[in-house]
Amino acid sequence: MDFEIGRGKRARRVYAFDDVAVIPSRRTRDPQDVSIAWGIDAFHFEVPFLSAPMDSVSSPATAIAIGRLGGLGVLGLEGLWTRYDDPQPLLEEIRELPADQVTRGMQRIYAAPIRADLIRLRLAEIRDAGVPVAAALSPQRTREFSAEVIEAGVDLFVIRGTTVSAQHVSKATEPLNLKQFIYELDVPVIVGGAATYTAALHLMRTGAAGVLVGFGGGAATTTRTALGIHAPMATAVADVAGARRDYLDESGGRYVHVIADGGLGNSGDIVKALAMGADAVMLGTTLARSTEAPGGGWHWGTEAYHDQLPRGGRVWVGQAAPLQQVLFGPASVPDGTVNLAGALRRAMATTGYSDVKEFQRVEVVVAPYLGG
Amino acid sequence: MDFEIGRGKRARRVYAFDDVAVIPSRRTRDPQDVSIAWGIDAFHFEVPFLSAPMDSVSSPATAIAIGRLGGLGVLGLEGLWTRYDDPQPLLEEIRELPADQVTRGMQRIYAAPIRADLIRLRLAEIRDAGVPVAAALSPQRTREFSAEVIEAGVDLFVIRGTTVSAQHVSKATEPLNLKQFIYELDVPVIVGGAATYTAALHLMRTGAAGVLVGFGGGAATTTRTALGIHAPMATAVADVAGARRDYLDESGGRYVHVIADGGLGNSGDIVKALAMGADAVMLGTTLARSTEAPGGGWHWGTEAYHDQLPRGGRVWVGQAAPLQQVLFGPASVPDGTVNLAGALRRAMATTGYSDVKEFQRVEVVVAPYLGG
Amino acid sequence: MDFEIGRGKRARRVYAFDDVAVIPSRRTRDPQDVSIAWGIDAFHFEVPFLSAPMDSVSSPATAIAIGRLGGLGVLGLEGLWTRYDDPQPLLEEIRELPADQVTRGMQRIYAAPIRADLIRLRLAEIRDAGVPVAAALSPQRTREFSAEVIEAGVDLFVIRGTTVSAQHVSKATEPLNLKQFIYELDVPVIVGGAATYTAALHLMRTGAAGVLVGFGGGAATTTRTALGIHAPMATAVADVAGARRDYLDESGGRYVHVIADGGLGNSGDIVKALAMGADAVMLGTTLARSTEAPGGGWHWGTEAYHDQLPRGGRVWVGQAAPLQQVLFGPASVPDGTVNLAGALRRAMATTGYSDVKEFQRVEVVVAPYLGG
Amino acid sequence: MDFEIGRGKRARRVYAFDDVAVIPSRRTRDPQDVSIAWGIDAFHFEVPFLSAPMDSVSSPATAIAIGRLGGLGVLGLEGLWTRYDDPQPLLEEIRELPADQVTRGMQRIYAAPIRADLIRLRLAEIRDAGVPVAAALSPQRTREFSAEVIEAGVDLFVIRGTTVSAQHVSKATEPLNLKQFIYELDVPVIVGGAATYTAALHLMRTGAAGVLVGFGGGAATTTRTALGIHAPMATAVADVAGARRDYLDESGGRYVHVIADGGLGNSGDIVKALAMGADAVMLGTTLARSTEAPGGGWHWGTEAYHDQLPRGGRVWVGQAAPLQQVLFGPASVPDGTVNLAGALRRAMATTGYSDVKEFQRVEVVVAPYLGG
Repeated sequence: MDFEIGRGKRARRVYAFDDVAVIPSRRTRDPQDVSIAWGIDAFHFEVPFLSAPMDSVSSPATAIAIGRLGGLGVLGLEGLWTRYDDPQPLLEEIRELPADQVTRGMQRIYAAPIRADLIRLRLAEIRDAGVPVAAALSPQRTREFSAEVIEAGVDLFVIRGTTVSAQHVSKATEPLNLKQFIYELDVPVIVGGAATYTAALHLMRTGAAGVLVGFGGGAATTTRTALGIHAPMATAVADVAGARRDYLDESGGRYVHVIADGGLGNSGDIVKALAMGADAVMLGTTLARSTEAPGGGWHWGTEAYHDQLPRGGRVWVGQAAPLQQVLFGPASVPDGTVNLAGALRRAMATTGYSDVKEFQRVEVVVAPYLGG
Repeated sequence: MDFEIGRGKRARRVYAFDDVAVIPSRRTRDPQDVSIAWGIDAFHFEVPFLSAPMDSVSSPATAIAIGRLGGLGVLGLEGLWTRYDDPQPLLEEIRELPADQVTRGMQRIYAAPIRADLIRLRLAEIRDAGVPVAAALSPQRTREFSAEVIEAGVDLFVIRGTTVSAQHVSKATEPLNLKQFIYELDVPVIVGGAATYTAALHLMRTGAAGVLVGFGGGAATTTRTALGIHAPMATAVADVAGARRDYLDESGGRYVHVIADGGLGNSGDIVKALAMGADAVMLGTTLARSTEAPGGGWHWGTEAYHDQLPRGGRVWVGQAAPLQQVLFGPASVPDGTVNLAGALRRAMATTGYSDVKEFQRVEVVVAPYLGG
Repeated sequence: MDFEIGRGKRARRVYAFDDVAVIPSRRTRDPQDVSIAWGIDAFHFEVPFLSAPMDSVSSPATAIAIGRLGGLGVLGLEGLWTRYDDPQPLLEEIRELPADQVTRGMQRIYAAPIRADLIRLRLAEIRDAGVPVAAALSPQRTREFSAEVIEAGVDLFVIRGTTVSAQHVSKATEPLNLKQFIYELDVPVIVGGAATYTAALHLMRTGAAGVLVGFGGGAATTTRTALGIHAPMATAVADVAGARRDYLDESGGRYVHVIADGGLGNSGDIVKALAMGADAVMLGTTLARSTEAPGGGWHWGTEAYHDQLPRGGRVWVGQAAPLQQVLFGPASVPDGTVNLAGALRRAMATTGYSDVKEFQRVEVVVAPYLGG
Repeated sequence: MDFEIGRGKRARRVYAFDDVAVIPSRRTRDPQDVSIAWGIDAFHFEVPFLSAPMDSVSSPATAIAIGRLGGLGVLGLEGLWTRYDDPQPLLEEIRELPADQVTRGMQRIYAAPIRADLIRLRLAEIRDAGVPVAAALSPQRTREFSAEVIEAGVDLFVIRGTTVSAQHVSKATEPLNLKQFIYELDVPVIVGGAATYTAALHLMRTGAAGVLVGFGGGAATTTRTALGIHAPMATAVADVAGARRDYLDESGGRYVHVIADGGLGNSGDIVKALAMGADAVMLGTTLARSTEAPGGGWHWGTEAYHDQLPRGGRVWVGQAAPLQQVLFGPASVPDGTVNLAGALRRAMATTGYSDVKEFQRVEVVVAPYLGG
C-alpha cells in the first residue's frame, strides 16, 4: 500500500511485530510433533536461535552454553572481551553507572583498543568447548581483524553493522569488497543488517550464506529518534524473505538464510519473525534476561557507546531464569520471556505446521494492539 | 482489506471489539419490548449468557444460580472442583498468592489429579437443582472423562480449548475424532475455540450444535505475547457467523449457534458480539465480578497454570454486585459492569431491533477509541 | 470507506473530532471582520452557542446570562430546578458526594418528582429577564409536560434524548407523534440527538427547525462502554449536514439547522463542529467550566442518574473563568477553555472565511493526534 | 488518500514526522563524505540550520554564535530584545513564573512597546560580529518597522506569522502587499508559515526567496486545542516542496527555498524534514536546549503571550549541551538532542546520499510509533 504523504512524496506503510499477529488454520498438531531445527551450511542446530554479539548477551561462556543447548552463540569481537584481559569489573561498572552518566561511562570504557591476542584467546576458548564457533566484526573492522579471526578458526563469520550494504562508497578509505572477501574466505559468512529487499538482494549476491535483517529495531536503540531511520521488523523480514525467494531463482538454487535480528522482545515476536519468513532469529533482549547473561539484567548494543553519536541506551530487561530454562522452560511466568522454544513449538502446533519452513506460510493478520 | 506486509506476505486487517461500535438506525423501541431470549437444541434461555468454565467464574453453586436466572452455567471439569474435595481453601490460597509467585503457585495447586468421582459429584449437584447441566472438558481430556460425564448426565457437553480444530494431527496419541464422538453422543455438543471461518466451518461439519468463538482474547491471557497468536474478537465472531450462514446452506438448514467466548469485558462488548453475529456469549470477566464468583474479585483462565508454558495471569477484576444485579440491575455504576441484560436490551431498543437474530444486522462502524 | 470486519459484516470508518483538524487556505482575514452570528426562525444570536440543558450547566440564572451575552440558554425541565424549590443544597450535595457513591447519590436525588408549578416558575424567571426562552424535555416527558411549557411561554422548544427517532415503536405506551406534535405547536422545535443521516432526515421531515447531533459523545458519558454504541462526532455532524442539504432540496427550500451536541471539550472542537457543517453548537463541558455554572467545576449529564442503567459519571472539568470571559476572553490560559468566540473568530480568519455558513466548506484533514 | 468523514465532507490523511521514517537504500556512504551545506541567495551556510526568532532561542548573542558555527541566526524583532534595554531580568522572570501564572505574566511582560532604537541597536550588534544578519517581523508589524530594519541593515528579511498568506483580506487596515513589499526590498525575503501547497505557491509568486513551512507544530503550541487547526509537518513540508517544483517550472527556473519551521524536536525530525523536501530547517526546541539559549531550558513561542487568545505555553525542554556541541557533538546522550549535524550526516550516509538536494529523494515509510 502506497500513501501520498504530500505532493510528490509517496510512502509505503510498513509494519512492526506489534502491528501483526499469527492466526490458527483449520488444523492443529501436537507440540512434540513439531520440529524447530535449523541448518546453515554444514551446521545443524536444534533451535533456530543465535545469540546477538552484544556484550550484555554473549560472552565466551554464554556462547558455549548456547551452543551446548542446540543454538549458535555469536561472540562480538569489538566488545569488552577483546579489549580487556578481564572484562568482569567493567561489566560490573557498566551495570552500576548512574543513569545520567551511562553513555559517557560506556564511551570511556569502550575507548580501550581491540587486541588481536584477545580475539585469538576468546575464540580458542569457544573452540575448545567443542561447539560451533561464530564471531562478529563490523564492516569497518573486518579488513583489520579478519586474518586474526580466520587464523583463530571460526566456523561461521558474521559481519554485522547497523546498516551493511554491498555497495559502500567512501572517499577516504577503500571500503571492504564484500563479494571478494566472502569469495576468498573458507567459512560461510552471515552479513547484515539489511532492512530492505534491494539491500538484502545485493548482500545475497555477495555470496553470503545468511543475511541479518534489522536496523536498530531493538529495545536498546534510539535510531529513530536520533537518525529518523526506522525499518519496522515485520515488513523488513518479509521483504528480505522475498529477496531470498527471488535470489533463489536468479542464482539457480542458492538458498540464503534470513535471520531476524532486532525487535525480538518475547517469544511471540520470535514466532512472528519466522511467520514473516525468517529461518532463524538472532536474540538480544530475550537472552539478556537469562541469569548467566553478562549484562546482569541490563542490556545494551554497540551503538550505545559510539564516541560521537550514541544511538542507544542501557536498558533494564530484568533476569527471568537460567539460560536453559529461558530456552526450554518450564516457565513460571506467562509473559513470553521463558520457554522460547516451547512457545515457538506450541505456536506452530496450534496453527498446524510441523517445521519452520512450512510455518513461514502461516496466515498473518494486521491487528494493532490497542486494547483487547 | 488485504495489506502487503512485505514482499510476498499479505495480511488482512482484523478488528477487536474496541475497534468498533454500534450505531442507531432511524427507528427506536422501548427496552421492555425487546426479547433477548436464546435457544439451543431443546433448551430455552431467557438471557443469551453462558458462564465460562473457569474456576474464578463457575462453581456448581454459581452454575446453578446462573441457570435459575435464565442463563446457562457451564462447569469446567478440569479445575479445582474435580481435583479437590473442598476447593474453597485452594481458591482462597490462589487469591492470596503474592504477585510474583502466582503462576508457580497455581501450577502447584492444579497439579493434583482430576478425579472421576468428583466429576460425578459436581454434576449431580447441578442436576439436583433442576437447571440445565452443562460441563466442559478440553479435547485432550474428552476421551478420558467423557464416559463419566455422560453417565453423570449432562444436557449440553462443551469441548473447549484455546484452539480446537476438527483435524488435530498427532503422532503420539490417536486424537479425538470429533465427528464420530459427537455423532455417538446423545447430547448436543458445543465446541471451540475457533477463531477463523475455515476452522469454524470444519467444526460445524462435525455435527456440533454450537461453536465457541475465541482464542485467548480475554483479559486474563497473554497468548499474543507468548505465542504471537491473536484473533481479535470482532472479526473472529463475524467470520464464524459467516461460516454459520454458509454451513446453513451447505447442510440444507442446520443452524449452528455461534457463541462468543473471550474479550467480553463489559456490557458494551456483549452488545458488539451479538452485533457481529453471535447468538449468545460465554462470559468470564463480567461474571467473575459478581460477589458470588469463586474468584472473589480475581479472575484466571486455564492457560494460567499450564505446567510448561503458562499464558495468562491472575487479574484483579473487582467485585461489582451480586450475580442477579450484575445480570439484571439496577446499576449504581455507569461502567458497563452491572445490568448486562438491561444494557443489551437498551442497546437493541435504541438501535431499533426487537430480538437478537434481528440485531445481528445492526449497522457497525469502525471507531477506534482514541479520545472523544 | 467501507471495511470488511469479517465475512458478511462490513463497517464504515467514522471519525471523532480528535481524528480531524482544519487547515488554512490561501487567504487570511482579520478576526474582527469575521461574523459568527447565527439565526434560527425569527431569532438572531451574536454567537452560535446554546447551553446544554444539563444541571451542571444551565440554571435559570445562567440561561439568562448566556442570553444576555448573545447566545441561547436552554433550561432542562427534568433536572433539579423542576424537582426542588431550592436546588442549591442538592447541587452542593452532588458536588460533594464521594466518588464511589456518586451514581447512587444522584439516583436518589433525582428520584424526586418533576413539578409543573416549578416548570412555570423557572420559565417565567427567564422570560422576565427579556432574553429568548428555550426549554428542553425528553421525548418520554414531552407529552406529559408540553402543555405546561407552552402555557408558561417558550420561544424555542427543545426535545432532547440520547437517541430520538421520528419512528419510535412501543407496545406499552403510544409514543409521541413528533410530526403531529411539532405541527400543532406554535413555537419552533429543536430535536435530537440524532447521529446518522437517515435518523436526522426523518427528524427533519417532522418539521423540526433544528436537529441536535450527538449520542452521548460528551466527556461525562459512558455509552460506549455500557451499550457498545458510539457515534463519533465529526462523522455524525457531517452526515447530518448532508441530510440538511438533501432535505433542503426535497422540501423545496426548508433549511433545518444542525446543532452539534456533545464532544465539544474546547474551542478547537467547536471550530471542528462548524467545519463539519454544524450551524451552531450546544455546549456542555465548556460552559460547565465557567465560574457561574451550577456544577461548580463538576459536570454530569442526564444519563448519569438513570435509575436502572446509569451511563455517565460526574466528571471534574474545573473552573476556568467567569462566563463572559469563557465566551469572549481575554484568555490567560492557552488550552482552548477561555475565549471560545475569539478562538472561533480567529480560526475562521486564519483559514480565510468570513461567516459560519462559508466556513462549513473549510478544508479538513484526517490527522490523528499521536504525537507532534 | 481522500477519506469520507461524512456525507459531503471528504478529508485527506495527513502525516506528522512521528508517523513516518526514513529507510536505507542499497548503498551506504562514509559520513565525512556527505555535504550538509546550504545556500540561499548569495549566502552560503555550512549547516542548513536557522534559529527560530523566539526569545527562548535567539538573542543577538546566540544569533552571532549560530552564524559563527555555520548556520543562520534569526532575531525576532517583537520580543524582549526590542522592548527592553536589558531583557535579562525579564527572561529570568519568565523562567521563574509559577505554572499557573505563566501566561498572564508573559502577557504583562510583552505588553511593553517595541522600540525602533532597540531594533537598530540589536541588529547593529549582530552586524558588527561579521555574521549574516537576519531578522524577523510578523506581517502585522512589517509595514510599521520595515524601514527601521532595512536602515539598520539586514542580509535576510524574515516575515513570520502562524499563518501568512499572500492574500490577506482586511476591512480595517490596508494589509501588507507582500508582492510589492518584496519587489521593492533590496534584500531577499523568507516568508511563512505556510502549511499547504496553494498557500505556499502564492507566497512563492510574491518573489520570496524562501518559504517557512509550519503552523504552530512546535512543542510549545496549543493551536490544535485552541483553534482546531493542525497541519502535521511531514505532509506540510512535502506539499510545499511540491509547490517549489511546480513554481520552478511556472517561473522558468526560480528556486524558492523550503524551510521547515516547527515540530523539529530532535535530530530524527530534522532528517525527516529534509527527506520530505525541505532545503533547511528553522530550529526552536533543539536550540532552546543549548546552554547558551536565553530560555535557560524553557521554551516559548510568540503565540504564548497573545493578549486575547494565547495559544501556547512555556515548556521545559531542558539543557542538553553547549551550542557547539548541540550542533556538532560529541554526544553523550542517545536521544537526538546533541550532535544535530552529525546525526544528519550519518542518516544521509547510512541511506546512501551525498548532499541535501539528493537526500530529498530518500525513501520514506509510514511507520506510526506504536511499540517496536
